[in-house]
Amino acid sequence: MPIPDPPTFDPTARAAFRHWARVPLRYVDQDPLGHINNAALPMCLEQARVELIQPVLKAHAGPDADIVLARVTIDYLKEMSYPGTIEIGTRLTRLGTKSVATAHAAFMAGSEVCVGTAVCVLVLFDTRKRASIAPGPALRSALEGLMA
Amino acid sequence: MPIPDPPTFDPTARAAFRHWARVPLRYVDQDPLGHINNAALPMCLEQARVELIQPVLKAHAGPDADIVLARVTIDYLKEMSYPGTIEIGTRLTRLGTKSVATAHAAFMAGSEVCVGTAVCVLVLFDTRKRASIAPGPALRSALEGLMA
Amino acid sequence: MPIPDPPTFDPTARAAFRHWARVPLRYVDQDPLGHINNAALPMCLEQARVELIQPVLKAHAGPDADIVLARVTIDYLKEMSYPGTIEIGTRLTRLGTKSVATAHAAFMAGSEVCVGTAVCVLVLFDTRKRASIAPGPALRSALEGLMA
Amino acid sequence: MPIPDPPTFDPTARAAFRHWARVPLRYVDQDPLGHINNAALPMCLEQARVELIQPVLKAHAGPDADIVLARVTIDYLKEMSYPGTIEIGTRLTRLGTKSVATAHAAFMAGSEVCVGTAVCVLVLFDTRKRASIAPGPALRSALEGLMA
Repeated sequence: MPIPDPPTFDPTARAAFRHWARVPLRYVDQDPLGHINNAALPMCLEQARVELIQPVLKAHAGPDADIVLARVTIDYLKEMSYPGTIEIGTRLTRLGTKSVATAHAAFMAGSEVCVGTAVCVLVLFDTRKRASIAPGPALRSALEGLMA
Repeated sequence: MPIPDPPTFDPTARAAFRHWARVPLRYVDQDPLGHINNAALPMCLEQARVELIQPVLKAHAGPDADIVLARVTIDYLKEMSYPGTIEIGTRLTRLGTKSVATAHAAFMAGSEVCVGTAVCVLVLFDTRKRASIAPGPALRSALEGLMA
Repeated sequence: MPIPDPPTFDPTARAAFRHWARVPLRYVDQDPLGHINNAALPMCLEQARVELIQPVLKAHAGPDADIVLARVTIDYLKEMSYPGTIEIGTRLTRLGTKSVATAHAAFMAGSEVCVGTAVCVLVLFDTRKRASIAPGPALRSALEGLMA
Repeated sequence: MPIPDPPTFDPTARAAFRHWARVPLRYVDQDPLGHINNAALPMCLEQARVELIQPVLKAHAGPDADIVLARVTIDYLKEMSYPGTIEIGTRLTRLGTKSVATAHAAFMAGSEVCVGTAVCVLVLFDTRKRASIAPGPALRSALEGLMA
């Protein structure tokens, strides 16, 4: 039986994402160029993964389980301007031994124009032991549910 | 005559970098995990490129010339903690038609342990025309001077 | 005829405020004490005045008119914690020659418990001339409308 | 014997302050008006009190002792611009049962022009018990040493 192709998706299309975080921009997110500073997107990505993945982690691996960002790549595709709300689509793309990979796309609310994309590698982490952790079967299964 | 190999360097070694920005950490850079939030590194990278590249741009392409971040990849190698100063080494690695690529390494002051590395693509930009610009010969030459 | 008493209000009661700004908290607003850092409230106050007063200014005094914070007093009454949304009530309390005073109260969405109060003095400012400005009759009248 | 007058000082003079914190400005501290956003000063004040008061607290009241901001008043006297370093002078002005009051003045490095002043009320706080604490004699004495 042939090995199925890996799931593919258009990383700049809203349709590729089921999970969304909404981050209303603040006046202070702007910089002297009169647009949203690049540092806003990392904060939005953090927001997206905290809202999506932390509840799953806490539910299946206890209150000390958390995620730590190991690697991020962001492509800034369009300028963003205040006021407005950034919507971040998120999907899990890979579940490793002690890490997960995520893909993200950013849109201004009400627009179909992708303003940025990102991929992240997150390490599962025990905040008390300060060490990475391998997810057990229940957490594994719950994380797989975010890969759709 | 053989074509020389492209310049290579160890992206985690202080010796690879001639240009440095120093960013003292602030209490507010910490997050609930008791370490420096991942969003601090993008700000430090911005600091590094603003300090190194903006003066060259303004000198050779006028006050409206600026740089805009198009792409960034950051590898978070070690936790950082307050108090301390992040030192960011920067070098230009490529000079394109309307863009430059940079490589960076981050260290805590007084330490040889690399806490993170990054590569960026920056677009040269006219803030008045809000359009990318191709550097003229003088700016090109000055930017090449940052590639050592 | 007796001079009426100045308008008074309970600065910690939702009922004292007609104008509201909503600022969803971000993970990054937290600090190592596990609560929302004190620096979040100044950002929320900025948000509140930008949303309420800037449109009035721009409409009646042109695109270069803006407000600059001259003085702020904040009373932090309760710890705030993530996740949640801060709601800032705002009212103008005084209209001076070149300045306005505002009063604010902060609540977590869904709660009647005031988590902080603030009073601000804002200077009307021409961003091109970089000088304070005295509002004309139309702007004055519009600002008085925010004093209710 | 006459009661001595309370200590007085010029809150805008460098000479009034013995304790200093230095906060180099970051590009991201700027806002669309091309100056340093008002939210930078609260962060600098936090920096000043953390550097001055936290070591005294931890030394005399243990690792769980901390300070929480209860009230702040800031007067913004001059615009600040990037690049530069803000220097914050700090002195304790009052030692209460469970709180201290501080006075601060802000200057750009190399300048005698005061760009802002502030007064704060800080509550001594046990981060584990999440309750305010009354300082014992050793801490009291150490804090009095910061009142000069």
